[in-house]
Amino acid sequence: MNVIIDLCVVPLGVGVSVSSHVAACQRVIETSGLEHRLHAYGTNIEGPWDEVMAVVKRCHEVVHEMGAPRITTTLKLGTRTDRDQHMDDKVSSVERLLDRGE
Amino acid sequence: MNVIIDLCVVPLGVGVSVSSHVAACQRVIETSGLEHRLHAYGTNIEGPWDEVMAVVKRCHEVVHEMGAPRITTTLKLGTRTDRDQHMDDKVSSVERLLDRGE
Amino acid sequence: MNVIIDLCVVPLGVGVSVSSHVAACQRVIETSGLEHRLHAYGTNIEGPWDEVMAVVKRCHEVVHEMGAPRITTTLKLGTRTDRDQHMDDKVSSVERLLDRGE
Amino acid sequence: MNVIIDLCVVPLGVGVSVSSHVAACQRVIETSGLEHRLHAYGTNIEGPWDEVMAVVKRCHEVVHEMGAPRITTTLKLGTRTDRDQHMDDKVSSVERLLDRGE
Repeated sequence: MNVIIDLCVVPLGVGVSVSSHVAACQRVIETSGLEHRLHAYGTNIEGPWDEVMAVVKRCHEVVHEMGAPRITTTLKLGTRTDRDQHMDDKVSSVERLLDRGE
Repeated sequence: MNVIIDLCVVPLGVGVSVSSHVAACQRVIETSGLEHRLHAYGTNIEGPWDEVMAVVKRCHEVVHEMGAPRITTTLKLGTRTDRDQHMDDKVSSVERLLDRGE
Repeated sequence: MNVIIDLCVVPLGVGVSVSSHVAACQRVIETSGLEHRLHAYGTNIEGPWDEVMAVVKRCHEVVHEMGAPRITTTLKLGTRTDRDQHMDDKVSSVERLLDRGE
Repeated sequence: MNVIIDLCVVPLGVGVSVSSHVAACQRVIETSGLEHRLHAYGTNIEGPWDEVMAVVKRCHEVVHEMGAPRITTTLKLGTRTDRDQHMDDKVSSVERLLDRGE
C-alpha cells in the first residue's frame, strides 16, 4: 500500500524559530530516499506505507534528540486502490484543468 | 515513545455517508485495546507509537476492503519526553484552569 | 451555511505548557454561546460559518495578547447541504452502528 | 493580522476524482489576488486574515454549488506578531540551513 503524506512537525518548548528542527526532518527524509517536496507549511512525501511511517517516527526521535521536549505533528495521509497516483500527478491534473479553463 | 493521536479517516468514492466506515475503524481501535475516545470530528487514541500506528494502517486496510477506492486521513500526533501525559490529563488540566477562572 | 469544526490552537515561543492558552481559547468559545466540546486534541465547535470563524480569529488574537509571538493552528471544517447535522448526530450515528454490531 | 494557511478541500459524495473541485478552488484563490502555491496535498495562501478566510468560505460555497453535498476541509493557519514572514521565507530559511549542512 503506497501513501502520499503531508507532514508538518512542530516542536514546542524550543522558542519561536523552528527552522533548524524542520531542516533536521528534511535530512531524515532525504536519507530515506523517498520522493518528497518541501512547501511553506509542510513536506509532501510518497512511498510504501511502512517506509513513509518510519520517516515520520524518525523525525519525532530526531527532534526530541535535538532537545525539544514536546512535539505536535499534523499529518495528512492519502491512499488509493483504484490506481497508482504520484504527487506530481495530483498537481498536474489540477493544472491541466486550469489551463483548459475547466 | 508514547503518542497521543487524533485520527480522522475519510473514505472517498463511497457516497455521502461515511459512518459505517468510521464504525469499522472504531472496531479496529477497540480490538487493539488502546485507550481511545470518539468525538464529533475524529478519535483520540493513546499508546506506544508502533501500536498506535499499526491501528492507523489497519484502518486504511479495512476501509479499502469495505470498497472505498480512496482514503484521505487527517492525523495529529503528540509526543513528549519531559513527562508522561495521558488524554485525560490534557482535558483536565484545561478544565482546572477554567474552574479556577484563570 | 453551518459548519462543524475541530480547532487545535498551538502557541509557539511560550514554553512546553500550553494549557493556559488553550483555556483562554475555551473562554472565547464559551463567550460565543456556540455549541462546543473539548477533547484531548482540540475542540469541536458548531454554528453559522461566520460566527464560528470569528471565534477562531478571536482565539488567535487572545493568544497573541497573552504573549505568544507565534501560533500554528490545525482546523478541520465540515459543511453539508444535503441535510442538517450536529456534532451529537455524528457521534451517535457511529455508536448506533457499533451497538448493532454492523 | 497576516496569516499563512495550508488549505485542503475534500468534497464527499462526488466520486473518487476531486480534481475538478480542487481546480474550482484554485480559480477562487487566483481571483482573490492573494499569494498562493499549489502542492500535492493542498494549497498555501498568505494575506490578511479576513481576505484569506473569505477565500476559504468561497471555496466551500463554490464546491457545494458544483453539486458536492458534503465537504471536509483541513486547514493549517500560522500567525506571528514578532516579525513579518512570507511563504517563501519559510521555505528558504530551511533550505539555507540544509545548504550550510546545519
